[in-house]
Order: sequence, then C-alpha cells, then structure tokens
Amino acid sequence: MTVQSKMLDRDLSTPSLISPQVPPKEVKLEEPVKLGIMASGSGTNFEAVARSIREGQLNAKIQVLIYNNPNAKVRSRAEGWEVPAVLLNHREYKSREEFDRSVVEVLQRHQVDWVVMAGWMRVATRVLLDAFPNKVINIHPSLLPSFRGVRAVEQALKAKVKITGCTVHIVSLEVDSGPILVQAAVPILEDDTPETLHDRVQVQEHIILPQAIALAVRG
Amino acid sequence: MTVQSKMLDRDLSTPSLISPQVPPKEVKLEEPVKLGIMASGSGTNFEAVARSIREGQLNAKIQVLIYNNPNAKVRSRAEGWEVPAVLLNHREYKSREEFDRSVVEVLQRHQVDWVVMAGWMRVATRVLLDAFPNKVINIHPSLLPSFRGVRAVEQALKAKVKITGCTVHIVSLEVDSGPILVQAAVPILEDDTPETLHDRVQVQEHIILPQAIALAVRG
Repeated sequence: MTVQSKMLDRDLSTPSLISPQVPPKEVKLEEPVKLGIMASGSGTNFEAVARSIREGQLNAKIQVLIYNNPNAKVRSRAEGWEVPAVLLNHREYKSREEFDRSVVEVLQRHQVDWVVMAGWMRVATRVLLDAFPNKVINIHPSLLPSFRGVRAVEQALKAKVKITGCTVHIVSLEVDSGPILVQAAVPILEDDTPETLHDRVQVQEHIILPQAIALAVRG
Repeated sequence: MTVQSKMLDRDLSTPSLISPQVPPKEVKLEEPVKLGIMASGSGTNFEAVARSIREGQLNAKIQVLIYNNPNAKVRSRAEGWEVPAVLLNHREYKSREEFDRSVVEVLQRHQVDWVVMAGWMRVATRVLLDAFPNKVINIHPSLLPSFRGVRAVEQALKAKVKITGCTVHIVSLEVDSGPILVQAAVPILEDDTPETLHDRVQVQEHIILPQAIALAVRG
C-alpha cells in the first residue's frame, strides 16, 4: 500500500443519505468472489474496494485491474495492492466490440466472476455483457435517472438542483441504466464548484460501491 | 383548528436529507407576506404552511384558499384555520386560460403577493404566471428532474430507484420545471407500497414547503 488516496483520508463529511440495504443473509463461509475492476482515472474507487476487502467488509479478491489510459494513476494503486494491472488502450482498436473482446479475454484469463466499472469511461458493448450477464456493475455520479452520461456532476450544478448523489447499478446496454443496487444523496452547497461537489460525491461513492458489490454478489 | 392532519402527527421518521438553506438574512420586522394557496386534495401541505405560520417560522398570512374539487378535504381545513375558501371548479371552464383568469381574479381580490400550489393538480398557464411573475411556487413529489408529471411516487417505485424525495420550485411554463428552492431526499424501503412511500415523502413536503416559501420571499 504505497499509494494512499488523499481523497479517501480527507474530511469531506456533509450530511448525506445512503439508501437502506437489504439485511445480510445468514453468514456462511464462502469463497471470496473474484472481481475484475476496470478504471480509467485516478482509481479512488479501486482503492475503496481494496480497502473494504482488507477490512473484511467485502469477501472478495481483486483478480485484475484493466485500465485504458497509459497514464492513469490507478495503475500504481494496483501495484501498491499487488493486483495485476493490464493496459488495454482503446485507441488501438477498430471498434468498441473488438476492444471489449480483449477486455473479456483478460477478465476470463484472470477467472473473474464479477466485473466492476469503477470510473471506466467506455460504454459497455454486448460483447462484454454477454460474457458476464448481469454481472457487470457500474458507478455513476448522479442520482439516476437524473443526469445520465458524461459530466454528471457538472450537469447537476448547471441544472441548479439542490441534491445530487451517486448510483451503483447493474450495467445494461442502455447507458447508465439497469437495475439500481445502492444510491447516496449528497446536498449541493451554495458555493460548490464542480471540484468541491465532485469530491463530496466521491466520498459517498467510496462508501456505496463496496456495499453494492456485496449486495449484488449475495444475489 | 378543528381539523388536524393525522398525517402530520404520525411518526414516519426515516433518515432523510434536506438540502441546505441559504442562511437567513438579518432579521427585521416585516409585513407578513400575503399567500394564496391552491390545493386539489386533502390539504396536508396547506395545514403544514398554516402551522408553520402559527409557530412563527414563516412570517406570512394565508389570504385565501382556492380549491377545484367540490369534495376536497382541504376546504374544511381552511375553515378550521379561518381562511376564506373559494371553489373554482375547472370542469365549468372552457379552457385552462379561462379557468386561470378566474384564479387570478380571486387571488388579486384577496391581495395575494405569492401563490403556493400545494397539491394543485392543474397545469399553470401563462395567464397565471404573467399575473404573478416568478411568484408562483409548486411542490412536486420527486427529486426533480427525475419523475416529472403525475404519479411521481409510483414512477419512482416502478423505476426501482433507491432514493426519491420532493422538490419545491418556482413555476415556469414547462411542467415541473423552473428554479429549484429546496429538495429533500427520502429512501425507498424494501417493502414500500405507493401509500407508505407517499406518506414518507409527504412528511418531508411538510417540512420543506414552508422553508421554501420563506426562502423565496426573502429573495
């Protein structure tokens, strides 16, 4: 753990609201679920999942990280957690489908059960979803169905809503749709910038992503 | 106060989140703002505003209640609070505009400054909005921009979101749009029915509607 997220340690506590979870079923000793994580950026959500596993809140093992930007900070995080990191640069592929065929190949080679898009800025194709039916999870920085698509935090600020948040959901072919697992509501403050709001939404993402993975895996 | 709302007294407390308010400006003795309230149903939001005024949280006076259904329970609430109640039955008008002309006539006759749609199931026309520019307030049972239109609570349940809520906003010509004043987030529980969820959303409506009126009036 050489890389620590400033984000994860900073105090960004404002009142927030997390949707109630289904009560856990009876505890039984289970094999850890094998996760493949896909990320495009700094990887704070990767870090949150890794920490949650270490702290025993999520019975899982991260088999592999796939990242698509050669300079993504998430790569060094993976190294810190001793997780194999595989670069698949989408610019080197002719189509989304061809790219996803490589993604699936890497995930299957690492014997992944569940796929987690943790800030993965690529749209999932049928190739990926058919290989992992109902087993691809995504996190989106809005209270869906509001503000689908890119720059959701900016969309919320522009719309001048007073509450936004984040959503973890099972991925379907339609972008930012599919069954919702967990949501968290975050108030927008009078003086919020995209950066300050993004930071507070991320704090909630780090809480609900591991919760949602545990919920999804339990069925 | 012969009529008391069961709703307002029942314990429906679940965790919820209300968007932060602009801090109140320095207190000065002001004339109470003159409100006209329009309601179509049971009138629990009317009741919440009336109580808020009585308890000194909102410096206002309800000049008149307009209701559009002859059997609306809100009528007897108005009597309990000694507020004049005027029935305008929309079925007796040829167009929305003609109906709103009568609405405006009643509001102006009662010297209303601000108009509050508190469960008013009619779409506002230009006739009303031109007579009270940026001074018509509406409450809607969702976290806008999600779930505009009728049966918003049912829409949220059907979409299987985990968090919904309510929104108070300034009315514009587009339905359930216009600048947002206050929002409250409400978790959806595993066993919620439209009725139980509606009840919990209403609890939050009763809190944020008076807050939003105070906020709007302050400018």
